Amino acid sequence: MKIGFVGLGHMGSHMAQNLVKAGFQVTVFDVVPTAIDALVAKGAKGAKTLADVAKEADVIITMLQTGQQVSDVCLQENGLFNNAKKDVLYIDSSSIDIVTCRDLHSKAEKMNIAMVDAPVSGGTVGAEAATLTFMVGGSEENFKRAQPILEKLGKKIVHAGSAGNGQAAKICNNLILGISMIAVSEGFSLGQKLGLDPKKFFEISSNASGQCWSMTSYCPVPGIIEKAPSNNDYKPGFMAKMMLKDLRLGQHAAESVNADIPLGAVTTELYSLFVNQGNAETDFSGIINLIAGNI
Amino acid sequence: MKIGFVGLGHMGSHMAQNLVKAGFQVTVFDVVPTAIDALVAKGAKGAKTLADVAKEADVIITMLQTGQQVSDVCLQENGLFNNAKKDVLYIDSSSIDIVTCRDLHSKAEKMNIAMVDAPVSGGTVGAEAATLTFMVGGSEENFKRAQPILEKLGKKIVHAGSAGNGQAAKICNNLILGISMIAVSEGFSLGQKLGLDPKKFFEISSNASGQCWSMTSYCPVPGIIEKAPSNNDYKPGFMAKMMLKDLRLGQHAAESVNADIPLGAVTTELYSLFVNQGNAETDFSGIINLIAGNI
Amino acid sequence: MKIGFVGLGHMGSHMAQNLVKAGFQVTVFDVVPTAIDALVAKGAKGAKTLADVAKEADVIITMLQTGQQVSDVCLQENGLFNNAKKDVLYIDSSSIDIVTCRDLHSKAEKMNIAMVDAPVSGGTVGAEAATLTFMVGGSEENFKRAQPILEKLGKKIVHAGSAGNGQAAKICNNLILGISMIAVSEGFSLGQKLGLDPKKFFEISSNASGQCWSMTSYCPVPGIIEKAPSNNDYKPGFMAKMMLKDLRLGQHAAESVNADIPLGAVTTELYSLFVNQGNAETDFSGIINLIAGNI
Amino acid sequence: MKIGFVGLGHMGSHMAQNLVKAGFQVTVFDVVPTAIDALVAKGAKGAKTLADVAKEADVIITMLQTGQQVSDVCLQENGLFNNAKKDVLYIDSSSIDIVTCRDLHSKAEKMNIAMVDAPVSGGTVGAEAATLTFMVGGSEENFKRAQPILEKLGKKIVHAGSAGNGQAAKICNNLILGISMIAVSEGFSLGQKLGLDPKKFFEISSNASGQCWSMTSYCPVPGIIEKAPSNNDYKPGFMAKMMLKDLRLGQHAAESVNADIPLGAVTTELYSLFVNQGNAETDFSGIINLIAGNI
Repeated sequence: MKIGFVGLGHMGSHMAQNLVKAGFQVTVFDVVPTAIDALVAKGAKGAKTLADVAKEADVIITMLQTGQQVSDVCLQENGLFNNAKKDVLYIDSSSIDIVTCRDLHSKAEKMNIAMVDAPVSGGTVGAEAATLTFMVGGSEENFKRAQPILEKLGKKIVHAGSAGNGQAAKICNNLILGISMIAVSEGFSLGQKLGLDPKKFFEISSNASGQCWSMTSYCPVPGIIEKAPSNNDYKPGFMAKMMLKDLRLGQHAAESVNADIPLGAVTTELYSLFVNQGNAETDFSGIINLIAGNI
Repeated sequence: MKIGFVGLGHMGSHMAQNLVKAGFQVTVFDVVPTAIDALVAKGAKGAKTLADVAKEADVIITMLQTGQQVSDVCLQENGLFNNAKKDVLYIDSSSIDIVTCRDLHSKAEKMNIAMVDAPVSGGTVGAEAATLTFMVGGSEENFKRAQPILEKLGKKIVHAGSAGNGQAAKICNNLILGISMIAVSEGFSLGQKLGLDPKKFFEISSNASGQCWSMTSYCPVPGIIEKAPSNNDYKPGFMAKMMLKDLRLGQHAAESVNADIPLGAVTTELYSLFVNQGNAETDFSGIINLIAGNI
Repeated sequence: MKIGFVGLGHMGSHMAQNLVKAGFQVTVFDVVPTAIDALVAKGAKGAKTLADVAKEADVIITMLQTGQQVSDVCLQENGLFNNAKKDVLYIDSSSIDIVTCRDLHSKAEKMNIAMVDAPVSGGTVGAEAATLTFMVGGSEENFKRAQPILEKLGKKIVHAGSAGNGQAAKICNNLILGISMIAVSEGFSLGQKLGLDPKKFFEISSNASGQCWSMTSYCPVPGIIEKAPSNNDYKPGFMAKMMLKDLRLGQHAAESVNADIPLGAVTTELYSLFVNQGNAETDFSGIINLIAGNI
Repeated sequence: MKIGFVGLGHMGSHMAQNLVKAGFQVTVFDVVPTAIDALVAKGAKGAKTLADVAKEADVIITMLQTGQQVSDVCLQENGLFNNAKKDVLYIDSSSIDIVTCRDLHSKAEKMNIAMVDAPVSGGTVGAEAATLTFMVGGSEENFKRAQPILEKLGKKIVHAGSAGNGQAAKICNNLILGISMIAVSEGFSLGQKLGLDPKKFFEISSNASGQCWSMTSYCPVPGIIEKAPSNNDYKPGFMAKMMLKDLRLGQHAAESVNADIPLGAVTTELYSLFVNQGNAETDFSGIINLIAGNI
């Protein structure tokens, strides 16, 4: 099976390499030529154009930054869709907005291109180790086709529902994550100022109704969860600017269906403030330092 | 051992009864005479005044609504402190503001009254079944004295630290709880409007970074967690007005130490709006209906 | 001078009619044929296609709902730009997002089309009476060309700066407006619950540092500003859903330049809640009823 | 007429001095002896105790920081109320919470002490120049008695209604002020990032629906309103910590009557963040630098 892969950034380069390792014939493309060269050195075939990627691929995967980029590579005259083979499967693993994603699904369908959206969680660590989680949106049939390929890239491949629901699941999960990270930051900061020992508070709250993943797997206070970025000077992990991106995708999604997300809106603003104060590449749990008045 | 008990409301009446059952000699007082009568019928001794409660008690317990009430019964001329026996232990199980609580500790200390603050979680169900959790603030010595008594009333007795830290722990935990309940409500409501099946989203997010107690033990969407109030028409459980009370205690605590709780502040306003729209006695998870635009 | 006019809704129909009255030869188009007929009855010429509008026009004006619509009519194969005469002036009076607006400016420039963005304030009343305010973005030269035409449609024609600054000025003004309307609602509602007579509070605050247009020209409390919608059962005026649209344009604008608008974000959510509770077509000052707990 | 004056801080010392200048016999007290000495040097009589102040005074004025302080000096055993002359008039010019204020009114009434609450606006500049605005709460009769005295201290003496309504008026006005200052900051910051010249935006918005006192009398952007603190490196003026104090009084007031102030709550948190980041004594308009990402 021949796979075309577009987008060789921090995530995509690891993913393409894992596909090569898994024995697929992988043709890669990126706007940065050296990124292509690096993959060629690992055994991939380099492409000069998007059309070259598309022409022979049985499966095309994109891993890009924005909905605009994904639309462009798919829909431009010399892009992926116009040059795709009959019966191609198209997997978009980028995290993009719902409206663009569903628009692409609908255009793909008209051109008889089988598409799934399959955004990931797990970060560059997961991309390298092939332990990503994929949240997949699309028909049962297309999900079934994508599954064996995605299993070479991740450990958990979940079918979230029909077109766009992969993005929806990721966006909604990260909305809850962003809010609860600040919730935990507020609880621990307030507690500390009141004289409560953070370890004692962790012992109490982690066994009570305040428990959440942000506290028990990724505690923003150092000295509690060993492998959390808070114990490594808030080196990411998951960068604040990426959380901000996901929160904004949440706002766009909410706007598109007239949903209310009041805490999501304030959380977005707080991450924006944090990023604007020079912390774009700090781990997102570092926001506790904004809340606690340390910065 | 003789115990004096003041405050026979929904919580206090069950607690006093459990002390009677445990074999203590319990003298009770409340401003509502019928509340006293009910306990007398269960084997308690009724008191006519606060002084009567205090005069013979080895341990005094209060379970009241507000810091003002607790201050009043303790500090008024004919109140508990002025009439307490030497070496009395005073346990306040009310949920009150930190400033008042610490002020009482300091006055108790000057009068040689051993005090712990010991607010609870677990609701009327826990009060009746003697399965409450107590978060206790005070010296190690006073905690040790209180422990065997509180064990007759609850299943988990945690020493949260020095004076006021019981209140601090409860306030900070419930701050996180209130915020995360709205976070979960936003995530599920947005997901549903985007066409995501709530059960599917639960399956994904409960195993991912969005996981929190509000989702996995008390999900505000019906049909997911069997015993959650969402499956019983949002009958409490934990009433919205009680969550609002705790969030306001959080705001007072934050103000007293100049802590920032931006999501806590918005959460307080959302619960206030919800309560003002006629939902004071709805379970606090019912706020999903405000977020989802169902009310 | 021949004017082409596209978009004959509540605002556009009045504007096109005023241009007819002013003696211009006006060719109109809308997707709703009866809207065209109505203008033809007033002396305009009806067009069958966008190309028909463009082919003979010296000036083209659009008055549409969304950036997507404006892009479509301008940029589609048979649209306005491809069919425009040499030296045409294009005026977009729609309220749309900055990014789309500036993208259009840049495409217009490449095609030698002189463009200004010229969103309005003043509502349907102003459109009918030709008393609108126009906030115009574009070069000095293009502004000068647009000015005499816009003067037939409005009383105040302000040059806000270069391309897109008309939209920017409107968005930023309405951001302040939306926030201050809720500020006034909070102040008066709180005052009333505290026992303060609204007329007395108006007398004090309107002469003090709380003064703002939302209070002194459009007070959300009835009985204070005679012609305000609050005295007419909150009939618009300026509909809540239009305020919500403008606030969302503000959020998109903020996102595009990484600006923080925390109160703007919460205000957007509050208007979204208000609209979702069935008040889309209520005047935007009606939000006081949400704040005051009357709905 | 003999006046007793308690509280000789930044405001009170000027006020007491103006009373001396106006020819009253003024007896002063403060916990800081040098503050008393300074007033004695200006012609006041120094008191050793609160009782000394009260015993001979026809009118007693307090100008303190907190409700707790005012309660203490009034209600303690050797305090003002217990030592007041028959028919005394008591004026509290402190800005304090409504609940404490109304509680004092009710205690004063029981002791036949005529009381008005009379908080001020105008700052130390107004205190020195005797140009303060007084917002007075109390009966018509008591207001009439206070008026001629307050006229020696300020230019505008407004009767806001019955007991506590002076505080209510000030709190509600400053709630609107705090919110609208951030609204203006968001509008101008966003505009500037979008490329809008602040002077141009001021010209547009100050004549449109965004107009407010924070913009047209106290613009947080330098170079627009000459005498605004923004033109003097944000030297106060009105310090951020004082705005925070008033916003918190607003929250306490809202809590006491179950009022919703969602923007007030977020505004409080933003000022708290600003103060915690080291700007307690910066003018409150300096918050634009937090919003704009300059700090």
